[in-house]
Amino acid sequence: MKEKVGKEFALHCPMPLGDHTTVQLAHGGGGRLMRGLIEGMFLPAFAAGSVSPPHDSAVIELDGRRLAFTTDSFVVSPLFFPGGDIGKLAVYGTVNDLAMAGAKPLCLSAAFILEEGFEMDQLRRVVASMRQAADEVGVQIVTGDTKVVDRGKGDGIYVNTAGIGVVPPGVNVSPTRVVAGDAVLVSGDLGRHGIAIMSVREGLSFEGALDSDCASLAGLVEKLTQTGDDVHCLRDLTRGGLAAALNEIAEHAAVGIELEESAVPVAAPVAGACELLGLDPLYVANEGRLVAFVPAEAAEGVLEVMRAEATAGQPAIIGTVTDELPGVVQIRSLLGGSRIVDLLSGEQMPRIC
Amino acid sequence: MKEKVGKEFALHCPMPLGDHTTVQLAHGGGGRLMRGLIEGMFLPAFAAGSVSPPHDSAVIELDGRRLAFTTDSFVVSPLFFPGGDIGKLAVYGTVNDLAMAGAKPLCLSAAFILEEGFEMDQLRRVVASMRQAADEVGVQIVTGDTKVVDRGKGDGIYVNTAGIGVVPPGVNVSPTRVVAGDAVLVSGDLGRHGIAIMSVREGLSFEGALDSDCASLAGLVEKLTQTGDDVHCLRDLTRGGLAAALNEIAEHAAVGIELEESAVPVAAPVAGACELLGLDPLYVANEGRLVAFVPAEAAEGVLEVMRAEATAGQPAIIGTVTDELPGVVQIRSLLGGSRIVDLLSGEQMPRIC
Repeated sequence: MKEKVGKEFALHCPMPLGDHTTVQLAHGGGGRLMRGLIEGMFLPAFAAGSVSPPHDSAVIELDGRRLAFTTDSFVVSPLFFPGGDIGKLAVYGTVNDLAMAGAKPLCLSAAFILEEGFEMDQLRRVVASMRQAADEVGVQIVTGDTKVVDRGKGDGIYVNTAGIGVVPPGVNVSPTRVVAGDAVLVSGDLGRHGIAIMSVREGLSFEGALDSDCASLAGLVEKLTQTGDDVHCLRDLTRGGLAAALNEIAEHAAVGIELEESAVPVAAPVAGACELLGLDPLYVANEGRLVAFVPAEAAEGVLEVMRAEATAGQPAIIGTVTDELPGVVQIRSLLGGSRIVDLLSGEQMPRIC
Repeated sequence: MKEKVGKEFALHCPMPLGDHTTVQLAHGGGGRLMRGLIEGMFLPAFAAGSVSPPHDSAVIELDGRRLAFTTDSFVVSPLFFPGGDIGKLAVYGTVNDLAMAGAKPLCLSAAFILEEGFEMDQLRRVVASMRQAADEVGVQIVTGDTKVVDRGKGDGIYVNTAGIGVVPPGVNVSPTRVVAGDAVLVSGDLGRHGIAIMSVREGLSFEGALDSDCASLAGLVEKLTQTGDDVHCLRDLTRGGLAAALNEIAEHAAVGIELEESAVPVAAPVAGACELLGLDPLYVANEGRLVAFVPAEAAEGVLEVMRAEATAGQPAIIGTVTDELPGVVQIRSLLGGSRIVDLLSGEQMPRIC
């Protein structure tokens, strides 16, 4: 079943790739359309021979060493937002993708697409922010590239970072290892990044400070993989939020996932903003949160490790993996009913990273 | 002297970075402004502790293995041109950067920034072209990313590729190894790529076919580094053409370079187009040509290897390295006089890659 992702997807999807003759914003939104594009076009072209499920990083073998390799472009608007900026996002985003393979970051690249007329002072701020973030993680930016496009063909600055990491011997973190009975944990409360971005765009101000959760997860992952507890799978929650991450894992591991709504941590200002804007925090983007799948008996210990990490607020055990309804994510509401947490078909918030 | 690149540059440059408060097209053109941006802003921030000269790829050590790592964004306009397209460029460009460190390509990443409304059929063509180019080189695209930006904030599609390569034991190719007495060779005639792009943009047609030289140099480099001849330095000729590549190497190796104008190979249609457009072929971009620095006694043998490679037309020995006038590139004209081949201050041809 796992080998036939494309076919299986076609059966589920009411809106196949071929229905769109042009690119829609939702093709980059982390939901159903983006998955259709990746599984319908990119994977068949680029990973025809591969049977490993798509993950945040590719893991390649070199003389018995396992290297993680990943890339991400950053097109966030606005460039500077409460708690972060495009430079920080670009460094942490790629570091976090490496960490989700259990890898220790080795080095990064940085490629800039600048729009003619972009303020040199803003570029300087972005570069300084990248340097600071890289120093904090202890990773070096070793190679780069600069392109300039004509006025009106960009949006100030787009940044791409790629990264190489080394997976320590004995660490084996992958969606294929998720099994029924696993506990599902999140490393902190949800939705801060998406709401911080929206607050600037919409000119909203909320009660209490609302900063992006934008942070490196490398330190937390190093601790989690060193505890001796067997961490089965890690995934950082970016576009499409918790819902997108869980749906992808449920499908690739061919398991069901059941969440307890009362256990899902959402800070009060985020909950308030979501109500105001008509958003569901399960779908709102994060940039410093991960979901972890661990054996049930290890869950409390993993929670302790998460609590000890300064970057993560309100970590929680939010659900369990089942062998019923493979591929389906459900949430039990406060009132006792259950609903399916599906992928979004449209685009909730464009350009949040 | 080599450690004080920033200071040394400031003495040479009549137009320091600080004079521009906004990004100019020439900051991406491969000439003086781009070097100012890289040496004035990016290198001090990202490679503060590094003493290795900036090169097409970074080389990092991992357990005695040397890995090459590089990144490039592609913003070429038009997307499809005689002899190639943005997809081919993106694969070959990164493969070539790895090859210039003497590395054998191991794997690539592919990150897309799509503009809302971009034709799905065009995306399909670009992806198919990337796949074909990767198959030809024998390298796999193992990881990727997709972002979508609003209409009017991009130009259809921008592609970033990053790559990892392995430098075989014994291979040591670096600008620091260039010494007086070295012969300077080019692997083929100059300027085809830039002129092919310009011909589409300006609606020109030339006598005879004029395709981009866009090609992988990995096969040629593998042969060159296996001959037993000691190849000192390799550099592919992209933005800023031969002039930019030679100036960078002359400065970092602290040597002079003397070229023979009569020996520099330029195909008739390229020479004609350059005359028509007021361009100097020494500055016009290539995407499948390299310059090689080898001991004088090895030059003829290296030329034979270049001739045997199908991708390269008209390889030639074009000059020598001297210890006079370190950092300066000169060319002896057909009439016997000499002129300095400097970096361009402005932008000759924007967005050719």
